[in-house]
Amino acid sequence: MSLNAEILCVGTEILLGNIVNTNATFLSQELSALGINVYYHTVVGDNPGRLADAVERALSHSDLVITTGGLGPTYDDLTKQTVANAMSLPMVLHEDILAALKARWESRGDVMPPNNEQQAWFPEGAEIIKNDWGTAPSCAVERNGKMVIMLPGPPNELRNIWNTYVAPLLAKKQDSVLVSRYCRIIGIGESALEERMPDLMKKSINPSVAPYAANGEMLLRVTAKAPTEEEAFALTLPAVEQIAGECGDALYAVDKDSLEQVLVEMLLSLDMKVAVCESMTGGWIAKRLTDAPGASAVFGCGLVAYADEIKHATVGVSQDTLDTHSSISLQAAIEMAEGTLRLSGADVALAVTGVAGPGALPQGDPGTVYVAVAGPLGTRAELLNVLRSRERDRNRMIATVRALDYLRHYLLAVQRG
Amino acid sequence: MSLNAEILCVGTEILLGNIVNTNATFLSQELSALGINVYYHTVVGDNPGRLADAVERALSHSDLVITTGGLGPTYDDLTKQTVANAMSLPMVLHEDILAALKARWESRGDVMPPNNEQQAWFPEGAEIIKNDWGTAPSCAVERNGKMVIMLPGPPNELRNIWNTYVAPLLAKKQDSVLVSRYCRIIGIGESALEERMPDLMKKSINPSVAPYAANGEMLLRVTAKAPTEEEAFALTLPAVEQIAGECGDALYAVDKDSLEQVLVEMLLSLDMKVAVCESMTGGWIAKRLTDAPGASAVFGCGLVAYADEIKHATVGVSQDTLDTHSSISLQAAIEMAEGTLRLSGADVALAVTGVAGPGALPQGDPGTVYVAVAGPLGTRAELLNVLRSRERDRNRMIATVRALDYLRHYLLAVQRG
Repeated sequence: MSLNAEILCVGTEILLGNIVNTNATFLSQELSALGINVYYHTVVGDNPGRLADAVERALSHSDLVITTGGLGPTYDDLTKQTVANAMSLPMVLHEDILAALKARWESRGDVMPPNNEQQAWFPEGAEIIKNDWGTAPSCAVERNGKMVIMLPGPPNELRNIWNTYVAPLLAKKQDSVLVSRYCRIIGIGESALEERMPDLMKKSINPSVAPYAANGEMLLRVTAKAPTEEEAFALTLPAVEQIAGECGDALYAVDKDSLEQVLVEMLLSLDMKVAVCESMTGGWIAKRLTDAPGASAVFGCGLVAYADEIKHATVGVSQDTLDTHSSISLQAAIEMAEGTLRLSGADVALAVTGVAGPGALPQGDPGTVYVAVAGPLGTRAELLNVLRSRERDRNRMIATVRALDYLRHYLLAVQRG
Repeated sequence: MSLNAEILCVGTEILLGNIVNTNATFLSQELSALGINVYYHTVVGDNPGRLADAVERALSHSDLVITTGGLGPTYDDLTKQTVANAMSLPMVLHEDILAALKARWESRGDVMPPNNEQQAWFPEGAEIIKNDWGTAPSCAVERNGKMVIMLPGPPNELRNIWNTYVAPLLAKKQDSVLVSRYCRIIGIGESALEERMPDLMKKSINPSVAPYAANGEMLLRVTAKAPTEEEAFALTLPAVEQIAGECGDALYAVDKDSLEQVLVEMLLSLDMKVAVCESMTGGWIAKRLTDAPGASAVFGCGLVAYADEIKHATVGVSQDTLDTHSSISLQAAIEMAEGTLRLSGADVALAVTGVAGPGALPQGDPGTVYVAVAGPLGTRAELLNVLRSRERDRNRMIATVRALDYLRHYLLAVQRG
């Protein structure tokens, strides 16, 4: 049996955009990991009528409702009372909780203000969930096959209470686990993936396959559900294999975090160091490489040769090339890579030059990108077919990803001898 | 008349917790700034029945519904069709949009896959809203006093479309004009700002003053509402003046986009060129500087001296300094800046070295950052008081911002002679 859940967040500050609703994200991840389907997120303000309406609706279509916020001591903290009303339960005072609250204030040499007493009132029959990280205790109420778990709004309290008390409580109720695999792809877009694997991407249910496009890459998430983790993992295998077969080298990682992490691992295994020389990407490639902890083992030198005189004097691009082809050319990229290889003492060097935008240049429109890699297989270079937009930031991001991926393909060729 | 709005986000990836729903936060902020009340956020998956239910409910209790997501080319992109059903409108094909989509594919030498055609179908009577930042056009539909605006899910597309097309469209529906001023501050935190200007920040209504902490900076948005733009602008002036008086040099810009844009303008006005030498930030400072269009006029050379041998052989940090103080020291930062000044031929050079993390090094905990600037006022250097976290990415981001800000203070001193 699989539960359906709704996450109901209470707080006007979310509706005003003053805070990002990271609680909903956290709870979604946690519920998914427990094999509980989350069908709705709802955010509602500290308004009695709309909150009551939202609670009733959530109870009508979900087995499990997780609320966040509205457990505090002020007049607009309404969650417990509203849930009690919706479930036709009276509120009862828990004397032990009240005593603990008063003791907490006294230990700081204060007297508890009277409005804090409402933190000791709960719907009748509620299971009290301790809050060791703040003042407002949480609680869970079960009635007529529906369960409501009420958590405080502050993210650190919510996460600690979840991990310590709520997750174990829910795990007991479940009879299955979910396993997700992450397939990362560069160079094949969403609609092309769908055309290559229509059945897998449109019809597969267990495992399900979900595509996400972000940051110049595609991510396919393969998720399976089974009584045990081993069985769920096994269910994902044929799908991951099919994706690997269809995507070939465009699939750069399964269950790894990032392209830069994959590159660092490839370079480590090849015992090679890389250097980079950037013009249009302006340091972004070096930044991406050094995002990976441990990058210093394989990366020592980056050059941002933004001006022609630096490309010439420091990197060694010939004046003839600059005059004849300009600094935005395949020849310039080649000489940047080869010059950087000599200068840095690295084993392989990646170079990029192009037009970032927003304006076009005589050498091309924004998005024109020349990339070169110099190393043990000689120098390879290419004009990349980068999506051309007027957005400087996007052009530079895509150029960065595609250049790093070009390096990856070069290293694949080295690995294969 | 004040509109009530609901934000309806469509996407299973949000319910699974794979992405944080920052679109809802952005739209909430923007709608609030327009004087539109947001009463609900709802998130629903790519499921026809639940999506239809959510659209109908949103239309039943809100004048304005803003949807995000579900406009793409795949089978699970259902938003337009579902809204059309809920409003009893047929879908119609826009031949001009279809032609533009096909042309876009052809310009890249590709043929448009047939499933992309659905991006050219819209509810009858919809106002098409151009998407200059992606393929899926947005649209707005009005019927029976209700309006639905459908925006794409990718945040950069959504934000650009909002700012360029949707915000002006909604402003026209309101009977007043909003003017927002943006005060950007580095080095004073949110609670310190609140202590210095309690009335302005907590009680001011027209203009309202909203603080946002992001990316190592504080942004104070001052928003005034009046019948005309001139009147609204005039209302913001005393608040902006008070902020300038309280913050002094920590206020680095009013109504400018970014620190890098301010630096490029300062360097241009001083007729100076800057070079940078980075260790822990790994290229991020150069990347930030070159985020600004026109950076090439003031920036020609960046060095990512990640390895000690590059700091020594290429940049000229003395072996004695590396042996005695290590590459993570004030002395190393000073020699990196001075070496880069010589090497690059620039007028001023910024250097950064430190501990990015996640692990600590003998030279310090993650977040230990040494910065130096060499230039016409001689060399200045400092151990920055950077927030120490175990998060590598955050340490590098803060180090980048604070180093750029250190350069700004140096340039302020140059300007003042």
